Amino acid sequence: MSVQILTENELRGLVSLDLSTIDAVEPAFRALAEGNAIQPPVLALEIADRNAEIDIKTAYINGLPEIAIKASSGFFDNSRRGLPSLSGFMALLSAETGQMKAILLDNGYLTDMRTAAAGALAARALARKEAHVGGVLGTGLQARLQMEALKLVRPLDRIFVWGRRQNAALEYAAEMQKRLGIPVEACESAEAVIRQADIIVTTTPAREPIVQAEWLRPGQHITAMGSDAAYKNEIAPSAVAHVTRFVCDVISQSYSLGELGPASAAGVVDPERNPIELGKVICGHVQGRISDHDITLCDLTGTGAQDTAIAVHALACAHNQNCGLTIAE
Amino acid sequence: MSVQILTENELRGLVSLDLSTIDAVEPAFRALAEGNAIQPPVLALEIADRNAEIDIKTAYINGLPEIAIKASSGFFDNSRRGLPSLSGFMALLSAETGQMKAILLDNGYLTDMRTAAAGALAARALARKEAHVGGVLGTGLQARLQMEALKLVRPLDRIFVWGRRQNAALEYAAEMQKRLGIPVEACESAEAVIRQADIIVTTTPAREPIVQAEWLRPGQHITAMGSDAAYKNEIAPSAVAHVTRFVCDVISQSYSLGELGPASAAGVVDPERNPIELGKVICGHVQGRISDHDITLCDLTGTGAQDTAIAVHALACAHNQNCGLTIAE
Repeated sequence: MSVQILTENELRGLVSLDLSTIDAVEPAFRALAEGNAIQPPVLALEIADRNAEIDIKTAYINGLPEIAIKASSGFFDNSRRGLPSLSGFMALLSAETGQMKAILLDNGYLTDMRTAAAGALAARALARKEAHVGGVLGTGLQARLQMEALKLVRPLDRIFVWGRRQNAALEYAAEMQKRLGIPVEACESAEAVIRQADIIVTTTPAREPIVQAEWLRPGQHITAMGSDAAYKNEIAPSAVAHVTRFVCDVISQSYSLGELGPASAAGVVDPERNPIELGKVICGHVQGRISDHDITLCDLTGTGAQDTAIAVHALACAHNQNCGLTIAE
Repeated sequence: MSVQILTENELRGLVSLDLSTIDAVEPAFRALAEGNAIQPPVLALEIADRNAEIDIKTAYINGLPEIAIKASSGFFDNSRRGLPSLSGFMALLSAETGQMKAILLDNGYLTDMRTAAAGALAARALARKEAHVGGVLGTGLQARLQMEALKLVRPLDRIFVWGRRQNAALEYAAEMQKRLGIPVEACESAEAVIRQADIIVTTTPAREPIVQAEWLRPGQHITAMGSDAAYKNEIAPSAVAHVTRFVCDVISQSYSLGELGPASAAGVVDPERNPIELGKVICGHVQGRISDHDITLCDLTGTGAQDTAIAVHALACAHNQNCGLTIAE
């Protein structure tokens, strides 16, 4: 028996944000939709005294050779020490025997990739094919990766960005214009971004909703990926009520961690209009966008199935390229 | 930043079943009793199609430098392939920063050690000091380790063993007599073991209770460590009712996975007589054995806190002996 160890640098060389990565994550949503995934609730270890949390996710996907176990840590006082707050790793166990196959010391890199890939999958499933103006709220790493991923699946020719700190938005615009080779413009308000864009991705840790119903117009698509905790909320409940097709990665998580929580608390979730899971749309079981006039919203909270899918992909890439250290047990 | 990798062989060389290991596990129970541990419920991934389960445990112990995340897998069709059913590993994250410190590729070895250590801690806290006759139900690895651990804390001079397969009991007796240097006798019934022993450890995966109330006598101590699932049950509810001091590692787990479940279902748990947590006895907050006439029972279901304690101990040993492979990230 042997265990393969892959470092963050090796993984960055193996997995990048391209169509193969997006396609590698798609089976996670298909499996969730078709009952071919087993995904227990997230295990959360909260350490209030240290302003820290460790989340552990796992999922079995029928047909994939391994099962990933992912730990993500957020130690929010690390910045005082000059260290990044977020960290993490994935372990891959054989889906046949349970034996350890690999440790991916990715420090969260694969999570960044699978999260961006999910945004692209949501847009590919729900946005109008000709949608070409991107909009993004937030200026962090995911704000960058989401637009990069979006450009792989839709003919983006312009991007609008807004962030709480105008300087960060200006930096984002300069950097991304160079990286993507299309005009990127910093806006002074979230409203200006929403009113001008065809596809909007929200990537903020907002606790008070930003996106308002009256800013939306028919034909738009919004991917809300910022909220991953009960106290977070990017989309106003009235805006959730206003969209014509509400899609999410996992309905129970959208209620507990995502945008259905505040919308439901506000009493605007129409019990007649069931939320749709993204996998059902990807599989063609349920129609996502029905007409060019629909306003589609996809709420992504992140799933262990995505982690298993990207980790299996990374290990396959490592095998193909004969990369990584092998430890004989 | 660097991550240390330790293999099972290295860990076997670093950690053995001795008083230092038992003492290293004790702080887990102290921390649980004193509110110095944060221990979320176990994350269980059950894969019925593969007759498999992966359990993930973790716990933070205030004052220890790392947090362990442990995955234990049981793939029960592995025997058909000539592979062991059980496997597992532990990851150690810094309790200060959340960053990865070490991966312990122990294949369950450290779990075996911390489980045996907990048995010794239970006996040290609850059995009469002069108790000298050991008894064990079951003939597997834990049946061996538990008696080895018990001999470190009580003056054992004789052991009785019973197993469903008489041959296995005879093999156990021959092997353990040699290993421990005291007479070990295989009995034809569980009753014969219970009636003759001062301290009994039950290590079976029984689904129907074995230990009956009428076999017990004043002064005995029983450690029940076999049951770790709702459908398992080693001690008859009437026997649980008959013991005078009921102790367990974690009350909620004893109800969900251990002996309090069946006893409670049978209606024999006296609501006036609260179960006692082992850590409270070890800390001296609650008296365990009050008199030589008490019959004490300690139900152990296994805790993430024990995992963190033994993993921290193993890593400290590795540092002291400059052992293991270091991967620069």
